[in-house]
Amino acid sequence: MAVYTDVPDDELAAFLRDYDLGEVVSCKGIAEGVENSNFLLRTEAGMFILTLYEKRVAPNDLPFFIALMEHLATAGIACPTPVKARDGQALRQLCGRPAAIVSFLDGLWPRRIHPFHCAGVGAALARLHLAGSSFAMTRANNLSLDGWRRLESAVGERANAMRAGLADEIAAELATLTQLWPRDLPSGVIHADLFPDNVFFRGEQVSGLIDFYFACTDFFAYDLAICLNAWCFENDGSLNVTKAKLLIGGYRTARPLDEAELRALPILARGSALRFLLTRLYDWLNQPSGALVKPKDPLEYVRKLRFHRGVASVSAYGILP
Amino acid sequence: MAVYTDVPDDELAAFLRDYDLGEVVSCKGIAEGVENSNFLLRTEAGMFILTLYEKRVAPNDLPFFIALMEHLATAGIACPTPVKARDGQALRQLCGRPAAIVSFLDGLWPRRIHPFHCAGVGAALARLHLAGSSFAMTRANNLSLDGWRRLESAVGERANAMRAGLADEIAAELATLTQLWPRDLPSGVIHADLFPDNVFFRGEQVSGLIDFYFACTDFFAYDLAICLNAWCFENDGSLNVTKAKLLIGGYRTARPLDEAELRALPILARGSALRFLLTRLYDWLNQPSGALVKPKDPLEYVRKLRFHRGVASVSAYGILP
Repeated sequence: MAVYTDVPDDELAAFLRDYDLGEVVSCKGIAEGVENSNFLLRTEAGMFILTLYEKRVAPNDLPFFIALMEHLATAGIACPTPVKARDGQALRQLCGRPAAIVSFLDGLWPRRIHPFHCAGVGAALARLHLAGSSFAMTRANNLSLDGWRRLESAVGERANAMRAGLADEIAAELATLTQLWPRDLPSGVIHADLFPDNVFFRGEQVSGLIDFYFACTDFFAYDLAICLNAWCFENDGSLNVTKAKLLIGGYRTARPLDEAELRALPILARGSALRFLLTRLYDWLNQPSGALVKPKDPLEYVRKLRFHRGVASVSAYGILP
Repeated sequence: MAVYTDVPDDELAAFLRDYDLGEVVSCKGIAEGVENSNFLLRTEAGMFILTLYEKRVAPNDLPFFIALMEHLATAGIACPTPVKARDGQALRQLCGRPAAIVSFLDGLWPRRIHPFHCAGVGAALARLHLAGSSFAMTRANNLSLDGWRRLESAVGERANAMRAGLADEIAAELATLTQLWPRDLPSGVIHADLFPDNVFFRGEQVSGLIDFYFACTDFFAYDLAICLNAWCFENDGSLNVTKAKLLIGGYRTARPLDEAELRALPILARGSALRFLLTRLYDWLNQPSGALVKPKDPLEYVRKLRFHRGVASVSAYGILP
């Protein structure tokens, strides 16, 4: 949780003058989100989120993210909708940083995952994939095989400081995934980071999806594998098969999975586990002193990786092969 | 900035069932405030602040703070109004901590202080004093002379780690203040921490006063001296006499200052400077590792203390003696 940039009241008032949103009524930094500075902004026109993009988001990628949110919102997905200033531009500058105002979404993200959450997020993910299929822009997934190799080199033997033998385990996994990674599955825009804190619910219904700053073009089923890891494991490290079944079942209510996608799911889940293991490990090994954000536990993803390595078929996820 | 306690969505929903506020629409931790965990809470009934009181607020003091806010709000002061649950109680428990919901106040706190801010906060402070004069409860100021002595002992020679000679300077100041501290000035409820981040403005008007968790019973003019230090010095350490004059003038538009109060102002300003020097110094010397909050600079208050030590009469503050 963090706000990296404080926005002075007078700079904010000047910034708002380019919009048709009336005057600022209040603006509070939000203690959530790891990558950017987010503010809950109230103006005479209503409630919004003001985001200042900090260094971890590449400025060159911002037009893709903004256009994607516009596209998805137009297609009926409950996601932040960029608000354009009077000149038609949503992406602007504030306090020396790229900044944008987006619509505010109701709902709470679930701290304890119940099975109904998994069914809901599965269906929402599939609808997102369908809505994104008509989006013209593309963005390579820089956290797929090539990215994992870069992270593996950056981490190197220091992985063993986390757990003895981890560097070898990562190298072996990467070799296997390089060999077995699918080449040809249905693809399009994926969210690529649809963890519980990025999905809002009101009651048992999904009310919004947020944080599209890892979105990219990749296999749809890989996005589902990310959710499988993020939503369906218990704190003790075991897979909750009921949740997995509901997640995948929920997905299939909106978008069918073909034979090849189902067959690839265990290897995609290994890849997803390796991806979060590597980024967490990198962050854990490279904590800046005085960091505002506590790094997440890399070992959680070692356990998930090992689980999927032992999976022979998708029946382990509660579905018929 | 900090949120010390994460509130799970299901616990929040259960907590809200005791109120007549409808269902939770959204809840976001706010990255402001040093002492407690604050959330911007939207329910079907509107927007509120949910506060979880963390260890630095003594639970025994909470009924005083809650009753004070109720009293002031009823008297027309724009301050957070505690919201009672169905059983009539505003002070409750959430996530094992005392917790309360209060009304949300519009406005922004000023990052750059203009003279009009000082006039506004002066008048608002005087109105607060008048409104509080009919409040029946009292609370001793545990950060006056006795409290300073306790902090001085706790800090001891370690003050010299901040600046050579500082321990002696503090001891000498404390001896002088013990001798010269007023015994008999108009008293009542004071805010005792009315820094810019606790005062909201819309345009040039004060729209709200927040954070009553240092409020206590003490000299009204001491509260004004705290504001003099908090609002009227420039970044280079010099007093802005225009701002001081407007602050005190603004105060006097709503509540006259008597002869004794005016005469006491320089010594009260020294006391106020010592108070914030000592608490900042204590915090600076006792930073927990991995702290979420960056300690404030104690030396800022050494400079202010020295300034007031050189003041012969209130004419230094821009007012006629």
